[in-house]
Formats: sequence, structure tokens, C-alpha cells
Amino acid sequence: MRVKLGIFIRQDGEHVYGDGRQALLERIDRLGSIRQAALEMGMSYRAAWGKIKATEDRLGIKLLERRTGGADGGGAVLTEEARRLMAAYADFRGGLDEDVNERFSASLVTHGIVR
Amino acid sequence: MRVKLGIFIRQDGEHVYGDGRQALLERIDRLGSIRQAALEMGMSYRAAWGKIKATEDRLGIKLLERRTGGADGGGAVLTEEARRLMAAYADFRGGLDEDVNERFSASLVTHGIVR
Repeated sequence: MRVKLGIFIRQDGEHVYGDGRQALLERIDRLGSIRQAALEMGMSYRAAWGKIKATEDRLGIKLLERRTGGADGGGAVLTEEARRLMAAYADFRGGLDEDVNERFSASLVTHGIVR
Repeated sequence: MRVKLGIFIRQDGEHVYGDGRQALLERIDRLGSIRQAALEMGMSYRAAWGKIKATEDRLGIKLLERRTGGADGGGAVLTEEARRLMAAYADFRGGLDEDVNERFSASLVTHGIVR
């Protein structure tokens, strides 16, 4: 048995960040384009942009500098604030699955479910 | 910001246990009836029984002793194995939200997002 975690960072009951948005920002950083990042994640440009906008609005920070124009509809560059948020999330998230699974395994042993 | 956790205990990629099933078993224990427990959780008897059965099959343990017959379709009593599983899960789950939130807050502070 393994514990799979769903991580939902909320503010006033609204989703503001999680694994999906972290993955989206990582791709935007690598590809320099919201459109290509969205494509790689199998979502529409509109959906990707909506998620970015929701996080920006709810946290009151700017995540992307958008460059309009050009054949691909312009590029996107991460702000320093986006990089700080991503670093904080990666720091929090790293090792969490392992720690939670160890905690779960320990409980199973304590209660005699597995040896 | 608060971290809300989704806990999905899986075996071979299949969901076997989590907050929902723990809540269902707690209600069955209190009400002595799958049907009434299902009603209280806003699900059908069929759905509730399907979840119990799936956990039993995947873990290879018996969770309920069912007593057939009677006006309410019979009662249900938790087995000792069900009680051990519930105790192990409660032990694992208790304090986890708080611990994860503390870890998240610490990362936000470390990365200068909040003071």
C-alpha cells in the first residue's frame, strides 16, 4: 500500500496553488510560452491562462511577464515572485510523499496490520 | 493560505482507503446499518456497499459482519480487522494536516513569501 497525496493550497476556500500549477509554471519557464506549456499538459491555452490568472489574483502577485506579438502569440517569462513561489513549493513538496508514507507504514506496524 | 490534503491509499494503482471510507465505517459502527450510514453520507446503499467490498477485496480482509433480514434490511457490525484498520488510519491521519501546514508555512517564510 502506498499513500498518494493530493495537495490543494487554498485561500478563503479557493484553490490557489498545487502540483498542477507548479508543473505548468515549470513548463512555461522551459518553453517560454504559455501556449506550448498548455499543449504539453494537454490543456487549452485558455485553461492554462485562467489558472495563472487565478493564482495571480488570489495571491496578489504577478507570475508572468507576457511578451505580445510574433508568430506564436508572444512569449512568457517568469517573474522573480513566481520563482520564489515555485522554490517555496518545491521545498515544501520535496520528500513529503516519502515522509507521509513512512508515517502510514509506521501506523500499520503499530496496529499489527503489517509486520 | 492553508494546505488541504487529499489522502488516497492505493494498492497496485487502485484506491483502497481514505477519509471517505474511514467516515463510512465510523457511521456504520455508530448506526449499525450500511443503509443508514449511506443515507447520512448522501450516497446510495449500492455505492456504500461497493466501497466496502472494494476495500475488503483489495486488502483481503473482512470489514463487516452482515446480519440479513428484518424491516431495515439487516444490520452490520464491524470486524476486529476493520477496527484495527480504522485505528491505524486515525493514528496516521491525526495531526497530519497540522504538520503539513507547518511545513508549508516554514517554506513560505524561508523563501521570503511571508514573514
